[in-house]
Amino acid sequence: MNSIEHQLEYESRGPLLVSFAAADSGIWKIDRVTPVIGETLPTATHLTMLEGKQSQSVANTTWTLRGVTSDVRYTNRHEIGELKERQQGLGRSEATRAALIPIRKTAAWWSLAQDERRAIFEEQSHHIAVGLAHLPAIARRLHHGRDLSEPFDFLTWFEYAPEHSRDFEDLVTQLRATREWQYVDREVDIRLSRV
Amino acid sequence: MNSIEHQLEYESRGPLLVSFAAADSGIWKIDRVTPVIGETLPTATHLTMLEGKQSQSVANTTWTLRGVTSDVRYTNRHEIGELKERQQGLGRSEATRAALIPIRKTAAWWSLAQDERRAIFEEQSHHIAVGLAHLPAIARRLHHGRDLSEPFDFLTWFEYAPEHSRDFEDLVTQLRATREWQYVDREVDIRLSRV
Repeated sequence: MNSIEHQLEYESRGPLLVSFAAADSGIWKIDRVTPVIGETLPTATHLTMLEGKQSQSVANTTWTLRGVTSDVRYTNRHEIGELKERQQGLGRSEATRAALIPIRKTAAWWSLAQDERRAIFEEQSHHIAVGLAHLPAIARRLHHGRDLSEPFDFLTWFEYAPEHSRDFEDLVTQLRATREWQYVDREVDIRLSRV
Repeated sequence: MNSIEHQLEYESRGPLLVSFAAADSGIWKIDRVTPVIGETLPTATHLTMLEGKQSQSVANTTWTLRGVTSDVRYTNRHEIGELKERQQGLGRSEATRAALIPIRKTAAWWSLAQDERRAIFEEQSHHIAVGLAHLPAIARRLHHGRDLSEPFDFLTWFEYAPEHSRDFEDLVTQLRATREWQYVDREVDIRLSRV
């Protein structure tokens, strides 16, 4: 399913529950796990992403993280237009590299008003603009875990071709240098590959 | 716990999961259930609101609806200031009347951008301003169900003293006449009382 199809599915059926299951076998090989801020995750060799009904029948994993692809929280109409024009979907055959970056934000972030969070997110930190600058090479999907009582507020999943690995490093380096990231109190960077 | 204490709890511990359990007995007596838009809910005589860990051990109910008190999605800083100054918490001894109003919004609403939803919600429909005009008489708490795959996107719980019943009718009548309500495709109005 590419991101346009996913958007259509979202519009017709609502949020999609997604589980990221780490275990001894799976679709993606875990190449490395780096704790960027705070505690890391237990060691596993493989990861599988399960969507919708599949996501509820996960067993015998080292760990499972869950999130829902919800409505946009900060993205304005003109930005959605630019994203739709430039982004590509998940599952491209050439995209054999992936990253899962679980993030938790501080209580101070969550107690901010909507206008304050939007200002930090985009006007000061350019989160959407930085993402746009790396399209279409880096495909991305955001999953929300906070309202599900998950340990992480967000799970962002990225897919790219090996020749865009440097673009991806540039993207995460830029985001981590922003004012928004001062509100991140846990971040784990999981890099993956498939043949 | 009043709403300021709840706010502090939220800021320190995150979203609170709340279950509204309808059954043959309970803290609140159900006086009437009116389907405003779309399908109604099965008949029951009593309702109990269960918070946090309690909310997960609900059994033998006619129906149970769940939601989380999440971060604000549309409220700006100046509005939060006015709300904090004027609102009162749940559980006031004189507030022996209550309403639970579950609402679902259309796919069209959820596919709007953040700036479009905020404009309809407040600049056009004055949702926050209408609520403010009925403070402190009508205490209120919003619970989000959409990301939990619940049948309703929102559960709003209201508490007020019998002498403010007309204020409450005025509040819901005003909200239902707004442009925002054109995006509501299911609404049930449940009125309750306790001694």
